[in-house]
Amino acid sequence: MKVSRYRKEGGISYSLGATVTMEFLLRCPEDIESVILHPGFDSSAKEDILKICRGNGIEVSTDVKPFNILSQKENCFVIGVIRKKDMKIDAGDHVVLVNPSNSGNLGTIIRSCAGFGVTNIAVIPPAADHYDPKTVRASMGALARVKVEVFAGFEEYRKRFPGNNLYPFMLDGSVLLQETEIKSPFSLVMGNEATGLPPEYKDVGTPVRIEHTDAIDSLNLPIATSIGLYEATKSAFMQK
Amino acid sequence: MKVSRYRKEGGISYSLGATVTMEFLLRCPEDIESVILHPGFDSSAKEDILKICRGNGIEVSTDVKPFNILSQKENCFVIGVIRKKDMKIDAGDHVVLVNPSNSGNLGTIIRSCAGFGVTNIAVIPPAADHYDPKTVRASMGALARVKVEVFAGFEEYRKRFPGNNLYPFMLDGSVLLQETEIKSPFSLVMGNEATGLPPEYKDVGTPVRIEHTDAIDSLNLPIATSIGLYEATKSAFMQK
Repeated sequence: MKVSRYRKEGGISYSLGATVTMEFLLRCPEDIESVILHPGFDSSAKEDILKICRGNGIEVSTDVKPFNILSQKENCFVIGVIRKKDMKIDAGDHVVLVNPSNSGNLGTIIRSCAGFGVTNIAVIPPAADHYDPKTVRASMGALARVKVEVFAGFEEYRKRFPGNNLYPFMLDGSVLLQETEIKSPFSLVMGNEATGLPPEYKDVGTPVRIEHTDAIDSLNLPIATSIGLYEATKSAFMQK
Repeated sequence: MKVSRYRKEGGISYSLGATVTMEFLLRCPEDIESVILHPGFDSSAKEDILKICRGNGIEVSTDVKPFNILSQKENCFVIGVIRKKDMKIDAGDHVVLVNPSNSGNLGTIIRSCAGFGVTNIAVIPPAADHYDPKTVRASMGALARVKVEVFAGFEEYRKRFPGNNLYPFMLDGSVLLQETEIKSPFSLVMGNEATGLPPEYKDVGTPVRIEHTDAIDSLNLPIATSIGLYEATKSAFMQK
């Protein structure tokens, strides 16, 4: 099995690690082109992986070279070769990421979205690549559980989902998150790690802020997004 | 100025980057042994840095070599040489980290703690090193704003603060976070990234859980900690 370094423009991505690859095998085996095992891989997960691959006609090879090319981590023994696909998000609750720049952060946000059951994520470019292997890995495979759609711009997103209640998260948002009722279908709109949302988002929907001390400039982006998700979904979890 | 690679056992750590170093210069200049500038550093922050150093008798040198030794990041132009100190936490609200293993996560948690005004952090080893330059950098310098104390064990911590209300965060915690009144002085007790808290913590205080779907095994540790901090401090922010 020959592999090349990941390219954003290419049609292929990689899941690095057994846990991450297993998520894709379980959730969307049709997207897996092949699985590569490290010669030193002898975990109990091996039989499970082989069984799923057999059941789905997925080619399995054993080769050390792809690991040298694709992974810097010592504890990576399984690689999934994933066919990228264009995803379309569904109507409902959304997280909207405007210019997220860090692939690890994007993956961590995808993991939280899956955890809080908000499985449709809109991305407004320029943005980190949701199929970057760093994103896939940071998502712990949760990318296999969600839909991520890249829109041309925020206006295009808004036109597709005119009924969504928009909550841009801003340092100078007019209302406190804990005092705001987040109404479904909601869109939690988050800005860039360093610069936040552009000021014009203050005229969009209900701008909320997560109050913090002036000891820090801002919360880390995945943390702010996850606090928003927690607050927006907690009543649903309480009713269960 | 000669520098060596960071060593946990040594008495010196490093703040990598202008923003992080500035936090230390502003908050605890007495802990800064010297500041090293990259020959290519010409940001507007340079005058501020030089001024604070002059005012506090901190030696400043310009040299490219330390950057090659200490920093892999291209955008690092300032290094602070920090004298480590033993910190003792004060009575009050605490975050207690039991066996946190990742220095980046530890730094991100420190940043959130500073943001939510919980500036006393207890660490139960084995644990990532709060003075690791990776931790310092992930904290965005917020380490200069908090106290971190390493205890021999959880029992030692508990004996020092017998009046604290303990809230261990566990996947099978008996109560939902959103249905729990977190009473000051509180201790939010968080486990290891991969394994969580040992099961015996279910008999400690009030074990809480952050409900999430079964799409993920757990939330990322800094995110779970920050959601706990948000929930525990939000009424104080609302009263302001």
